[in-house]
Amino acid sequence: MSAAAAGDSVGLTQTQTVRLFTSGQPLRLEGGDALGPVDVAYETYGTLNADASNAVYLCHALTGDAHAAGWHAGDRRPGWWDNLIGPGRPLDTNRFFVICSNLLGGCQGTTGPGSVSPLTNAPYGMDFPLLDMADFVAVHRALLAHLGVTRLLVALGGSLGGMQVLQWALTHPEDMAHATIVAASSRLTAQNIAFSAVARRAITDDPDFHDGEYAALGTNPDTGLSIARMMAHITYLSEEAFTEKFGRSSQFEESRRGFGVDFAVESYLDHQGQVFLERFDALSYLYLSRVMDYFDPFSRPDALAALAASPVRTMVLSFDSDWRFSTAHSLRIVRRLENARVPVTFRELKSPYGHDSFLLENPVYHATLRAWFDRALEVGP
Amino acid sequence: MSAAAAGDSVGLTQTQTVRLFTSGQPLRLEGGDALGPVDVAYETYGTLNADASNAVYLCHALTGDAHAAGWHAGDRRPGWWDNLIGPGRPLDTNRFFVICSNLLGGCQGTTGPGSVSPLTNAPYGMDFPLLDMADFVAVHRALLAHLGVTRLLVALGGSLGGMQVLQWALTHPEDMAHATIVAASSRLTAQNIAFSAVARRAITDDPDFHDGEYAALGTNPDTGLSIARMMAHITYLSEEAFTEKFGRSSQFEESRRGFGVDFAVESYLDHQGQVFLERFDALSYLYLSRVMDYFDPFSRPDALAALAASPVRTMVLSFDSDWRFSTAHSLRIVRRLENARVPVTFRELKSPYGHDSFLLENPVYHATLRAWFDRALEVGP
Repeated sequence: MSAAAAGDSVGLTQTQTVRLFTSGQPLRLEGGDALGPVDVAYETYGTLNADASNAVYLCHALTGDAHAAGWHAGDRRPGWWDNLIGPGRPLDTNRFFVICSNLLGGCQGTTGPGSVSPLTNAPYGMDFPLLDMADFVAVHRALLAHLGVTRLLVALGGSLGGMQVLQWALTHPEDMAHATIVAASSRLTAQNIAFSAVARRAITDDPDFHDGEYAALGTNPDTGLSIARMMAHITYLSEEAFTEKFGRSSQFEESRRGFGVDFAVESYLDHQGQVFLERFDALSYLYLSRVMDYFDPFSRPDALAALAASPVRTMVLSFDSDWRFSTAHSLRIVRRLENARVPVTFRELKSPYGHDSFLLENPVYHATLRAWFDRALEVGP
Repeated sequence: MSAAAAGDSVGLTQTQTVRLFTSGQPLRLEGGDALGPVDVAYETYGTLNADASNAVYLCHALTGDAHAAGWHAGDRRPGWWDNLIGPGRPLDTNRFFVICSNLLGGCQGTTGPGSVSPLTNAPYGMDFPLLDMADFVAVHRALLAHLGVTRLLVALGGSLGGMQVLQWALTHPEDMAHATIVAASSRLTAQNIAFSAVARRAITDDPDFHDGEYAALGTNPDTGLSIARMMAHITYLSEEAFTEKFGRSSQFEESRRGFGVDFAVESYLDHQGQVFLERFDALSYLYLSRVMDYFDPFSRPDALAALAASPVRTMVLSFDSDWRFSTAHSLRIVRRLENARVPVTFRELKSPYGHDSFLLENPVYHATLRAWFDRALEVGP
């Protein structure tokens, strides 16, 4: 599908980069370190209106990037949330101004562990400081200021994106009118951490990892990173989705018994592991996944005080077949919000596709979001 | 706990090894190859009675071995199903004669890919032939003949062990009176295969794997094998069990944020990955797990004809929190047996511990097995 054939897509887009923090005026991280410079890659879709009252911020998930919608020259696929964004879509770009930035610690334009440290003129590697969900939010806020947006109409994110929205709403509710938290968690379970821990071990135990100095040495922990990605993909789909998509079929006309790629599901995972290497960095995987492990915002005293004192409206969505961040995770958030008398709309949506559902075009899901966004526009920020 | 303090344990045991097939009279494998010699490691507990009517065969799971009960000199733990076997235990060794052998393709005494090939005088490596569930059964049958048992009172196994019992009951129902299939499957799902596929990839992509020739080269794919084991352990426990055992606690008094082992669940997985290296071989992991992927006995025409024409009684047990081989897997077996009018007793047992439950001492589970074994003894083989 070319950009020209994209129909009601936002069409061709490009990623911009802005330096939001410098070495002289660095970002103060939650953990105490100072980080600068910090460059941020972002895209916008639609037009900010005169009173800057139509801004929507998308927070991306673990391996997302700033390219949420439309097409870049040469793209085989549009941006990762393209089905949501564009003329006539739930985030109608004739009415909303949509912002999406690559996360701090990422590897697609925003400063991360693969960036060059001004101190050494070499990639940070493991010298990059440990991050916290609050650091992601601090950088998002700096981008908003740069764009002249003082208050978001909507903050929206799925999975790790939803965790950022939760953190943001708790600590800076003045920044937004509507917080939208999809398929997320306020606290990973031991099983969640276990999956991430094994993925990280696959990366750090890869002999090409070299304590994170692989870039300087001209190597890459391809094996570990693809294993991590394959394992993660198992958790992104429901068992039902795996069965529906692949069953036990062979990718060949007849099964070729052996230790190679035979079952269709093996071919799928193999492909996912390989294409991931082209677009993602192993250190970013470590840093970003570790932020999720430690995220536990409700454990702080008075965690909900600011949000409860604000007029922010929240929506929490889950998918019934999501076993990575099941409805139980969303309900934990909902109960905390309700207990603090924060207005919260909760919906468990039916979908057979597991955690990945939050990225898919599901009619009830999209209708729910559309109604929420439309109402937000009526109410204003 | 020493053997002397083992109470009603079977006490000190030892593994015996017997050559069941030779190069001249090899095992004819389901896939067409001939394999010989085939040595089998086994243990027995209790005494075979005069009419050989009290024999119970235990089939072990993916990484089990012949040492099911009692103690070897130097053991820190007894055999893997010790809680089931011994005086006064459900498999009372004053009444039953219990046999357990290491699987064909294994690495704890029975011929497998790490054994020396008579053709090359070097370890088989990937030249070892691909195996089938029927090949495991063929070797079990040869051991039975060696031991002078013509008909088992009970065949019993959990997980891959249950799959062997199912195969055995379908193809040679004359060998047993009671087939006991616990936490097993007649056909892996795409998700099941996905987990195994990623585990195998971790092994085969380890640079120390050397296309399976690591033994000859004096290396071992430790990294890949431990990653495989860590990942498998995630599937052996329920999410609830992970939460109960570890929650989000740190293994230290205070969390030491970083990329090391911090959360208790990380320490657990790390330990499981490490100790596994001392006792298991990477090639056995590949060969045995692949047998499970391809297992699909009901797909054969007339798969149930022999069993349905026999007097074999079957019991199928599942655990409600098992998400590796959930109750749905067991029910598929039950429905097939019922449709063929094979007598089948089915029970879904409550346990919070997931797939691992089949190895644990759960009162209702053990009472169910005890009643089943006692009744078998009354009825006879």
